[in-house]
Amino acid sequence: MQNPGLDALLNPNSIAIIGASTDPNKISGRSIHYLNTYGYSGKVYPINPKYEEVQGHRSYSSLFDIPGEVDLVLIAISAKHVIKTLNECVQKKVKACIIFSSGFAELGEEGRKIQEQISEIAKTSTMRIVGPNCQGISNLKTRSTTSFSTSFADEKLAYGSTATISQSGAVAAMAYNIQKDYGRGVKYWIATGNESDVNVQELVHYIVDDPDIKVVQAYFEDVKDGELLIEAAKKARQLKKPILALKPGKSDEAKKAASSHTGALAGEDIVFDAICQQYGIVRVDDIMELSTFPQIFELDKKIQGKKVAILTNSGGLGVMMVDKCKELGLEIAQFSEETLSKLDTILPEFAATENPIDLTAQLLNDKQLLSNAFPILMEDSQIDIILVAFSGIGKGYDIAGMINDIAKASKEGDKMLAVSWVASEKGVIEAFGEKGIPAFPDPTLMIKGVAKFADYQLRSRRDIENSTVNETAKPISLDSYARDSSNGFLSEYNSKRILKKWSLPVTKEGLANSADEAAELANAFGYPVVMKVSSEFIQHKTESGGVRLNIQNADELREAYESILQNSLQVVDRDQIEGILVQEMVQEGFEISLGLKKDPIFGPVIMVASGGIYIEVIKDFRLLVPPVTYDMAKQAVDSLAMAPLLNGVRGKAKLDVDALCRTIISFSQMIQESGDQLEEVDMNPVMVMEEGQGVRIVDALFKLKELNLIKIG
Amino acid sequence: MQNPGLDALLNPNSIAIIGASTDPNKISGRSIHYLNTYGYSGKVYPINPKYEEVQGHRSYSSLFDIPGEVDLVLIAISAKHVIKTLNECVQKKVKACIIFSSGFAELGEEGRKIQEQISEIAKTSTMRIVGPNCQGISNLKTRSTTSFSTSFADEKLAYGSTATISQSGAVAAMAYNIQKDYGRGVKYWIATGNESDVNVQELVHYIVDDPDIKVVQAYFEDVKDGELLIEAAKKARQLKKPILALKPGKSDEAKKAASSHTGALAGEDIVFDAICQQYGIVRVDDIMELSTFPQIFELDKKIQGKKVAILTNSGGLGVMMVDKCKELGLEIAQFSEETLSKLDTILPEFAATENPIDLTAQLLNDKQLLSNAFPILMEDSQIDIILVAFSGIGKGYDIAGMINDIAKASKEGDKMLAVSWVASEKGVIEAFGEKGIPAFPDPTLMIKGVAKFADYQLRSRRDIENSTVNETAKPISLDSYARDSSNGFLSEYNSKRILKKWSLPVTKEGLANSADEAAELANAFGYPVVMKVSSEFIQHKTESGGVRLNIQNADELREAYESILQNSLQVVDRDQIEGILVQEMVQEGFEISLGLKKDPIFGPVIMVASGGIYIEVIKDFRLLVPPVTYDMAKQAVDSLAMAPLLNGVRGKAKLDVDALCRTIISFSQMIQESGDQLEEVDMNPVMVMEEGQGVRIVDALFKLKELNLIKIG
Repeated sequence: MQNPGLDALLNPNSIAIIGASTDPNKISGRSIHYLNTYGYSGKVYPINPKYEEVQGHRSYSSLFDIPGEVDLVLIAISAKHVIKTLNECVQKKVKACIIFSSGFAELGEEGRKIQEQISEIAKTSTMRIVGPNCQGISNLKTRSTTSFSTSFADEKLAYGSTATISQSGAVAAMAYNIQKDYGRGVKYWIATGNESDVNVQELVHYIVDDPDIKVVQAYFEDVKDGELLIEAAKKARQLKKPILALKPGKSDEAKKAASSHTGALAGEDIVFDAICQQYGIVRVDDIMELSTFPQIFELDKKIQGKKVAILTNSGGLGVMMVDKCKELGLEIAQFSEETLSKLDTILPEFAATENPIDLTAQLLNDKQLLSNAFPILMEDSQIDIILVAFSGIGKGYDIAGMINDIAKASKEGDKMLAVSWVASEKGVIEAFGEKGIPAFPDPTLMIKGVAKFADYQLRSRRDIENSTVNETAKPISLDSYARDSSNGFLSEYNSKRILKKWSLPVTKEGLANSADEAAELANAFGYPVVMKVSSEFIQHKTESGGVRLNIQNADELREAYESILQNSLQVVDRDQIEGILVQEMVQEGFEISLGLKKDPIFGPVIMVASGGIYIEVIKDFRLLVPPVTYDMAKQAVDSLAMAPLLNGVRGKAKLDVDALCRTIISFSQMIQESGDQLEEVDMNPVMVMEEGQGVRIVDALFKLKELNLIKIG
Repeated sequence: MQNPGLDALLNPNSIAIIGASTDPNKISGRSIHYLNTYGYSGKVYPINPKYEEVQGHRSYSSLFDIPGEVDLVLIAISAKHVIKTLNECVQKKVKACIIFSSGFAELGEEGRKIQEQISEIAKTSTMRIVGPNCQGISNLKTRSTTSFSTSFADEKLAYGSTATISQSGAVAAMAYNIQKDYGRGVKYWIATGNESDVNVQELVHYIVDDPDIKVVQAYFEDVKDGELLIEAAKKARQLKKPILALKPGKSDEAKKAASSHTGALAGEDIVFDAICQQYGIVRVDDIMELSTFPQIFELDKKIQGKKVAILTNSGGLGVMMVDKCKELGLEIAQFSEETLSKLDTILPEFAATENPIDLTAQLLNDKQLLSNAFPILMEDSQIDIILVAFSGIGKGYDIAGMINDIAKASKEGDKMLAVSWVASEKGVIEAFGEKGIPAFPDPTLMIKGVAKFADYQLRSRRDIENSTVNETAKPISLDSYARDSSNGFLSEYNSKRILKKWSLPVTKEGLANSADEAAELANAFGYPVVMKVSSEFIQHKTESGGVRLNIQNADELREAYESILQNSLQVVDRDQIEGILVQEMVQEGFEISLGLKKDPIFGPVIMVASGGIYIEVIKDFRLLVPPVTYDMAKQAVDSLAMAPLLNGVRGKAKLDVDALCRTIISFSQMIQESGDQLEEVDMNPVMVMEEGQGVRIVDALFKLKELNLIKIG
């Protein structure tokens, strides 16, 4: 870790506090109080001309009075004085600042302007800035608790191998407090607030390298740097360190609320979701998942599959867990004969030895039951995961002994093990936490976490290599395909010429400027044919009478040519019509739609959708971020609701999914190699033919970003 | 409540315990211990010839030695002696027994046979039996704790207005213990085990009348009496007492596990789900929901709509809650101008006054903030529900004062209010529980519960009257439609004659026994027509060449007639062919499929499905249980994934959903009025035409149950 600015934030050697307060409960006093309480070993410089001493530290009247270097400055003064102070920090060569003050982008236009100035200072200096409107940072290892969060008010730090990196201080506090309740802890506690400079993505990217860290918890209200998030995710995957991400903003209402909270301008949630899927970020659903799943994701166990053994003292709980496991994609292990007969010897006659194993109340009488059962399960290769679920364990049970037996089994065995202990005595969950055993009061929460962990591990095991894109320094120019400006739109003919350049399979077609030319083309392709007007000025060809399908012979063709031309001349001039497109008619196949949209945060995004009426009614689509590998394309296609129609349902023929995936890869290559020239691409329909017959892009519409105007005529 | 058997179970005046133990930890001793501990005021008769006295009560050597009447007998002896003891109980005129012993249907065939004998004893006597393999019953009001569950081991009963009725003792125990942790309690704690006689349905049906009970929690591993469950649900709806139902068994693995737990033979989960939907049973998803939702469902508040106000001390929590509310179908209230300006006067400048309201850390300084804010929200008619969500409330906060302020607001205001308090100090959730305020450590769980409560209340408010079915004592006979036995199948012609009898809209059609007759029919209907073989012996007409579509003229018709006849004669004899059906050809419309299936538990079930390929690929169907009202039919149709195609999407015409709903109602009437004669009905496709054009049942296949054989020829 060798970024001086970020190092100064995460592990400062000296900290100055502007307007330091003698009151340990005030925002400008609390951090000093925490530094004192937890025994921070670096230098602490209160700055307050009113006092000689603040909370035991010599007080300075100004930053410039401090004799040595200052790594980190904490700022909790009124918004309007912040800029001046920051400039002084730059002058003093301070490495980083944390601005606690609020009153910036979250309050509206005026505040947003000051915040822009803050960003500007960060950009034009080497000084890094966290905040404003943030609760700061704590490193629980070095005890540099430069935060005013009440998280640290109870005088005991809960240290652990998680990094909690959040825009919201309250979310960081909840995640921390819940982990504490579970007997767990964190190394970093970070709340970045409005993110004028340093943001969650950058910190995730940086901290994932920290050898103390096993899991990163990230809470986003918006993503400011999509590329950096992807880089962070790639690095985390390489290092096998899971990122758990919580991000509200699925609803417009939540986006609005986020904006008034941290001034966040959230992008499309579905794109964020696609990024998570594609790069192995584990998206969690709520604060409980964010806070409790690190228990599981920290486990140093390699999962081979999804086959679960359930060990319970309650038949009813076992039945419910089986259902929940299946619902969430886990499998119920079929025990080997050996396991069954071994279990038979240690379990009472009336206990169920099949999965789920019901130990019954026998657990009360037979103190060896657990320690006898675990080795049997650990040895069965039909089992990948062991879930322990207890309820009604109270008076009479040797609870400490049970916890020890479970911890021992987990330590000695290869398989992952998690515990759900319903309505437990006080302290049970915490005791497991302290021994590094994932434990939950809520069985559903445990199963959700285990299912996500299995998905994460099994997926990250698959070799997701990057596609072999030729990342040319200079993008291939598309200028020659643009005939004229019409808001950047290209004609169908030129759109398809671009597709052909990247070997995307378009329909056979040619441009005719007379009925004779048209007839010649039709003879070459064979009837029936389709005819369409080709003009960058007509985007809605069908509506303006510019399309004729199923033309059976030369007579129909000549009539169609005239009719399309006349109809189109109602809408545009003759010299705006490039010609009439004559096209082979694709009669069979399943309609897919492929498109490119630009996301303001993540850039180009490929949409793969069921075509025709499906997409409108059931919103059957998947998003992919280039570069796309074959594996990614296949996964996207196979996860469409209509995928069974592609893969042969009801005795119908299988369609050419392979060709579709290769088309998606070519599309991704085209997007990459053409840089930012593409604004929007819509290929609809793309007909997927029977296996071996490929696909045909029947219609295509390109919109370019910057068009060199080539004047017509 | 005046069922002597069930009364003896729920509120016995005298209890005998067979094989009573002096050890309060043994199964046969524990119940006596509990009865003593909690001060049960009725008579307790231990039966054990070995002792003079058992746990302070005089012991008897046999049931017959007991001087007076015995209401309830507890049996915890070996399975093989149970029958003998039960017979003695009958002889002694015992009103009810609870059999704790295991070793019955849950262990296999042998046990199942003994269990059948138990059922037989219950059937042939007035004595009611709970169990075997059950943990028994506790009435926490009268303290008749006739259970051996460890739930009651901690010497404090948690009494409340919920009834916990469960097959599984462990599930009852979890539900009870979790409720206790939340400061709540139950009146009845019931675990019915293998249900040889009394089952959860019957107890729900009975207990819902108890004026002490506000909410029923029910856990099913199987449903033995579907009709009774429906009756219970109807009564509960009438009484406005919610039934919360938890039932695993979605997966085959869970069904298997349930069977080895309580010998349960679970039916189709989707049918149970449809019953819940249709009769307002609130199906919950797991043990946490079952245990914590009564807090909400007990509330005596009338919800007017789904518009939620969120009051939080954390912007991040507010943003997440907004998202979760939207995801779960709640709406985010738009505050009135008056509310906004009133909030402005009490909130600090930097707090968000829009929804979600962020009180910020100001809550620490301004002790009046909460008590000032609530009346403002309670008065705004734009708000239906108030959700309070706190986090990071620790040192320095007046927690008791906050709890009081919230309780006061809930008591004084009309609107429902629920609290989520993340990572709280110990005792906070419990304190809310004791004041009758729903409180949750997990915001997601709270929102799920509130959303289900709003659905429940708003739905039960709608007038779901029963359909005006003419419930004839004697079903209308279908014998005359059956020409011969072929496993009960009818020909298409006869199937449709039945449909016509109940005014279901079938295609215009007639039966021809010569090409001339066919031509005559075609002329009457107008070309194009469809021709099909009509025979109860050919169920797969298309495959055997018995169908011709789109016949355009007389020539084609004559050729088709011969061809269909010849093809069919390859499969059946001439006298098995009723004739050739000539039918109008329905060319437009959306394909729906309507069917009837018989569920082993719930009887006839109507399936409404998107037709054609949709149903196979996306399983787009809904189930309805007759009698079906217009409202139910409409709700089912509108909730199909493909509903937008019926209701006009992409500028397409709206289709005749009204006629479809009326068809479903007629279908339901037909099912009711024909009693149990119908085994299966398949109408596919049912074409839904444009609005005002009705629907056409194009094909139909009936299977009758008992067919009076009318011999052919």
